[in-house]
Amino acid sequence: MKVLAGTVQALEEIAVQTQGQGFSNITPLVNDFVARSGITTGLLSLCLQHTSCSMTINENADPRVLKDLAAWMEAVVPQDGKGPADAQGQRRRYLHDDEGDDDMPAHIRTALTSQTMTLSVHNSRLLLGTWQAVYLWEHRQLGSRRRIACHLIGEKQATSTQAATTQTASNQTLLNLRNATRLNQQIQDRIHPEAWAEDGGNPTDVDLLIDRLHDISDS
Amino acid sequence: MKVLAGTVQALEEIAVQTQGQGFSNITPLVNDFVARSGITTGLLSLCLQHTSCSMTINENADPRVLKDLAAWMEAVVPQDGKGPADAQGQRRRYLHDDEGDDDMPAHIRTALTSQTMTLSVHNSRLLLGTWQAVYLWEHRQLGSRRRIACHLIGEKQATSTQAATTQTASNQTLLNLRNATRLNQQIQDRIHPEAWAEDGGNPTDVDLLIDRLHDISDS
Amino acid sequence: MKVLAGTVQALEEIAVQTQGQGFSNITPLVNDFVARSGITTGLLSLCLQHTSCSMTINENADPRVLKDLAAWMEAVVPQDGKGPADAQGQRRRYLHDDEGDDDMPAHIRTALTSQTMTLSVHNSRLLLGTWQAVYLWEHRQLGSRRRIACHLIGEKQATSTQAATTQTASNQTLLNLRNATRLNQQIQDRIHPEAWAEDGGNPTDVDLLIDRLHDISDS
Repeated sequence: MKVLAGTVQALEEIAVQTQGQGFSNITPLVNDFVARSGITTGLLSLCLQHTSCSMTINENADPRVLKDLAAWMEAVVPQDGKGPADAQGQRRRYLHDDEGDDDMPAHIRTALTSQTMTLSVHNSRLLLGTWQAVYLWEHRQLGSRRRIACHLIGEKQATSTQAATTQTASNQTLLNLRNATRLNQQIQDRIHPEAWAEDGGNPTDVDLLIDRLHDISDS
Repeated sequence: MKVLAGTVQALEEIAVQTQGQGFSNITPLVNDFVARSGITTGLLSLCLQHTSCSMTINENADPRVLKDLAAWMEAVVPQDGKGPADAQGQRRRYLHDDEGDDDMPAHIRTALTSQTMTLSVHNSRLLLGTWQAVYLWEHRQLGSRRRIACHLIGEKQATSTQAATTQTASNQTLLNLRNATRLNQQIQDRIHPEAWAEDGGNPTDVDLLIDRLHDISDS
Repeated sequence: MKVLAGTVQALEEIAVQTQGQGFSNITPLVNDFVARSGITTGLLSLCLQHTSCSMTINENADPRVLKDLAAWMEAVVPQDGKGPADAQGQRRRYLHDDEGDDDMPAHIRTALTSQTMTLSVHNSRLLLGTWQAVYLWEHRQLGSRRRIACHLIGEKQATSTQAATTQTASNQTLLNLRNATRLNQQIQDRIHPEAWAEDGGNPTDVDLLIDRLHDISDS
């Protein structure tokens, strides 16, 4: 820990063009913002500027996790114009339906997941677990341009001994998690033709896995 | 972005008297706190001091959105003293029932929505999307005095060129969203007698719409 | 409010060893981190580094609240390998099942509760309501070592008149809430043999109640 001789803040709206319902991994975009800011250690807040999409942190390796998450949402917040069955077994028509049957479910799905989020930045990058990615979750059937207020408060040069210690510990932990068996298992999942077929093949996730293999061979 | 020559923080508890189950738009109260703080650009955290009410960001225009959201909650987190049907179709009585049948559902509803929230402040106001409002969601049947810790860290005078650029971009985006068709549609919804009757007429939301029309005619 | 002459930040990963599905009250651990940081007033962010456990703020007194919350989750996000019944009454098998039937439900439960959280620190302690505790919620059936990034930005010595005023108001409110009737009711719940038997007796919660009684007699 140290005195922030030069505390700075960076505030920027980043935009994501969604392609209809689904998940966009925004981790690289947010890391780009962090790099642009020049802030090495700080506290980051993300705030979506919309009420029909949300954010969530979830597994970055097996795309079936996101499919199952979406299927759960579809079961519990259906999109056929009616809410879920209540305790009497009745399904009630949504009152707010003038923007389409998928609009009111989108508002509810947004309320159930994250609308704002805080993350730590260290060594000029988001401090996330090995298997975590930050997703923008589009809940409308048509994609649109979604804006996120990214706000980072911190310092441009971290010389703190405490922060350095933390980072050392963190690297060790990450290395433990990056064991070959688990990585291989994840990669096997990805190269399984069925998983690929269902997924349509998301290159970002594969790139992430390759990056991690490089990380391991570097360290 | 700039060095925060004078970083300040403001911490205040604001109180909201709720009138039973439902939503209180706390955006104006929070903007009042921001104005009192004198901080022009900063990061704001809201933390509710209770476990049977929560916060959510949702649409500020059509009151039927909030009605549908409440109806979804009632279906999935019922208040008749029993939980929802499990995979075997059984409904299990809540164990914690000494504070009334609406108490345990209130705790669950709180856990499913936002208990803490971060927002960006720019130009001395919350940086929110055009259709967003921050709501305190009372989950108990009787209203009570609810307290929110409002904590803002930032600077009193923003002279940052980057911040200025962001704001310009933001204004353009807001203007795009403020198109006449969508606004008219929203206003039609509001002056629809049935919507009014169901809503009981919330003057704040109408004021917001009128303010926006003024904004457009000014710009 | 005052100028932060010496703004500092502290960033540390704290680890919690969970014992299988359930709740760990991490409030004392986080307060320990705050004490170590030396920061008296500031903004704290917690960010879990995992995707199959989450955080939630809920009642710290009656352990049956947590049992009911867990039962609700089990009903709505079941763990028998299939998702909840959809609008057509069908239950769909999870696709992501290679890490066990409890893994995909853990990812969904995480998405529905808090993955990141912001809290205010004042007088070197978390500013929480009387009945609030922060819980780490383990969603996997086997416990593991869970890491939380704790990040606090603030000042080492608060001399702010506004902060002082806030604290005075807050103490008064807490005293009002700490009325004997309510406390006694909670303590009666705890010494009820049935509640104890079901709970297995969580000493931390009892200690908290005793601490509060001491607080009252001190004030």
